[in-house]
Amino acid sequence: MAFRTVALLSDLGHADETVGTLHAIVRDIAAEAAVIDLTHDISPFDVRAAALALARATGYLPGEVVVVAAVEADDHRPVAVEVAGGRGILIGPDNGLLASAVAIAGGADRALVLDRDEYHLASPGAPSAMRDLMTPAAAHLCAGVPFSALGTEIDPALLLPGTLALPREPEPGQLVCEVMWVDRYGACQLNAGPDDVDGWGAHLELRVGDDVRAVRRVERSSELASGAVGLIVDRFGMCALAMHRRSAADELGLASGAAVTLASGEPNNVTTPVTFRSR
Amino acid sequence: MAFRTVALLSDLGHADETVGTLHAIVRDIAAEAAVIDLTHDISPFDVRAAALALARATGYLPGEVVVVAAVEADDHRPVAVEVAGGRGILIGPDNGLLASAVAIAGGADRALVLDRDEYHLASPGAPSAMRDLMTPAAAHLCAGVPFSALGTEIDPALLLPGTLALPREPEPGQLVCEVMWVDRYGACQLNAGPDDVDGWGAHLELRVGDDVRAVRRVERSSELASGAVGLIVDRFGMCALAMHRRSAADELGLASGAAVTLASGEPNNVTTPVTFRSR
Amino acid sequence: MAFRTVALLSDLGHADETVGTLHAIVRDIAAEAAVIDLTHDISPFDVRAAALALARATGYLPGEVVVVAAVEADDHRPVAVEVAGGRGILIGPDNGLLASAVAIAGGADRALVLDRDEYHLASPGAPSAMRDLMTPAAAHLCAGVPFSALGTEIDPALLLPGTLALPREPEPGQLVCEVMWVDRYGACQLNAGPDDVDGWGAHLELRVGDDVRAVRRVERSSELASGAVGLIVDRFGMCALAMHRRSAADELGLASGAAVTLASGEPNNVTTPVTFRSR
Repeated sequence: MAFRTVALLSDLGHADETVGTLHAIVRDIAAEAAVIDLTHDISPFDVRAAALALARATGYLPGEVVVVAAVEADDHRPVAVEVAGGRGILIGPDNGLLASAVAIAGGADRALVLDRDEYHLASPGAPSAMRDLMTPAAAHLCAGVPFSALGTEIDPALLLPGTLALPREPEPGQLVCEVMWVDRYGACQLNAGPDDVDGWGAHLELRVGDDVRAVRRVERSSELASGAVGLIVDRFGMCALAMHRRSAADELGLASGAAVTLASGEPNNVTTPVTFRSR
Repeated sequence: MAFRTVALLSDLGHADETVGTLHAIVRDIAAEAAVIDLTHDISPFDVRAAALALARATGYLPGEVVVVAAVEADDHRPVAVEVAGGRGILIGPDNGLLASAVAIAGGADRALVLDRDEYHLASPGAPSAMRDLMTPAAAHLCAGVPFSALGTEIDPALLLPGTLALPREPEPGQLVCEVMWVDRYGACQLNAGPDDVDGWGAHLELRVGDDVRAVRRVERSSELASGAVGLIVDRFGMCALAMHRRSAADELGLASGAAVTLASGEPNNVTTPVTFRSR
Repeated sequence: MAFRTVALLSDLGHADETVGTLHAIVRDIAAEAAVIDLTHDISPFDVRAAALALARATGYLPGEVVVVAAVEADDHRPVAVEVAGGRGILIGPDNGLLASAVAIAGGADRALVLDRDEYHLASPGAPSAMRDLMTPAAAHLCAGVPFSALGTEIDPALLLPGTLALPREPEPGQLVCEVMWVDRYGACQLNAGPDDVDGWGAHLELRVGDDVRAVRRVERSSELASGAVGLIVDRFGMCALAMHRRSAADELGLASGAAVTLASGEPNNVTTPVTFRSR
């Protein structure tokens, strides 16, 4: 058996039996394959959030894995992308959802459209791409069906790219970022890495709308005083705004997609003062 | 080993370790069996919702499967029902929860009451049927214990039937339906199939209380204009009220169990007009 | 392979891909190991709730199991504790989280600090103990790495103890308890067992703040009249306040950590009368 693991990511939620059905389908077609739920709690229809979660998980995937990642109500054609010299396959809609993960995995070796009905399940009504097409195709790969049998080959260069914004640097020492993701604990991951603020020192200005604050660069949020917001390099290697055991997103009124501006040095006109804890 | 997979469905939720405990029990008794969570987020004590979720999942179950499906605080006797010529066993309370699934699987071959203590776990206090009786019994089936050893055989015809309402047709071209289920995206599945509205054409009247609207029959909700409600055949082959990327349940004020009336043809006295998108 | 199952317990939630990543890590390091999620919905940072959930699950764990249990933002050193003659390993922070589980499993045979980097994953930024240290160490145990290779041995007697409060008995026939846990159905588990109220009879007084009620000892909550609160021995063998298909926590205004007083006999000055159902 070439592929041993099916990893699933979706917006299907757990309130009903849909995700369980996907597990049952894999078990039926490829009894030896393991099924991993990356997450199914992506907000309904949120392609960007799904793409980011998939990208964050990509570096941790095992070898011989088929990933199926999609959100509902998406009419883009279903595609399969071979990566890592054939050690991984990513299956999803051709809408950019897979793009960052493909790039992190080293780029696409081959790609195809999932258009071979014999590897799909019949739909009793409106088709569900995840249930009827993508998950069965993943299971058939685990059962030994070769990649090329799943559909018509296409040029990987023609797959829709992702649309992750880069941070803007309107002047040196100033960075306009976007909140990519708010984690369970309220940390706000930015679309900036530590290189983007390299040499800026430990004292920064954070501007969110009209709110201006001093933030300190720290290694861990536990270094921060109660009420203080810090800039950390988070567990994925990205810059994030965080507080100690409190939600920076709640404190700053931020959600995924919001814009924030970082600048080097202490701010002159702080609107929300905080007391830093002496280290 | 006769049975290879245990599929679980309950109202136990994921807030605590209860579901994890069920996995641990199966792993301890039958290490080679796979465990699939169909769902554990049935509303507390909701037998009807559990029965519907189980019925929807039944067609996707693998062979050699034991399904355990129950809700808490149910004092009905625990039973096991053999279906599909011995390829599947359904375990649950004798309260109708299993009835639709048994019918979909082709009817009961044999049934028994789970009354053999040697295949149960001791209860430190009030017994939990799912944890102490049903899941251990399912695991023992996977470990090779024969079906007949689990309890005292009973006549399958005496199992409590399900109580799913059929739609009423007070006059030709009019159908009084019940909302069986609202899915994560707000689509309202009705207790009617496409045959029930066969020949009614593309333009229908929907009556919810005093609200009268025009709804159009479409194949996919993406064909609908923003704000329009359509009637689709959903991914389970049932009629459902749906909107494009919005919740029809929220728009119409519907929940599981609500009554709606469909009629053929354009309504005369629309109370909520919508603009359809030209195709 | 010595260890066959990794059981995970955390406050990581399911909203993002973090838990899926833990499964992927185990699959990558020890493909044959099964992974069980005990629960990941512990409230953020709640060490006590995690310790209690782990303790409740301990008696149901299979043999040859490695348990990883932790909450985020915890800077205590990561430790591994061998129990049950080497049939189980508990991995977590040295903050008392593991203490009750270790005691239930018969006490610690050996313990060590997880300080061998070769069995950890590199952290791209701020380390995540669960992802980068504890879960990889658990997977390596399943892949055959001996326990003693994971780190530096320490005296198990020096591990931080748990801090579960015992009930107080200010005078005979009176017991001041704490609510340890509110389950999904609203039952309030107390830090008291049936021995603590032995000989008190079927009629008790319950005092919650200024609210005084009669409660009856029953075996199952289904024996209670609508609106009545009862004292049961719950499915873990602990005393719990419960109602029939209603939330005792909502009715009494109780949450985890709240204090309640039980006394033997009918109360003289009931503030909230209820009608008991005749049996």
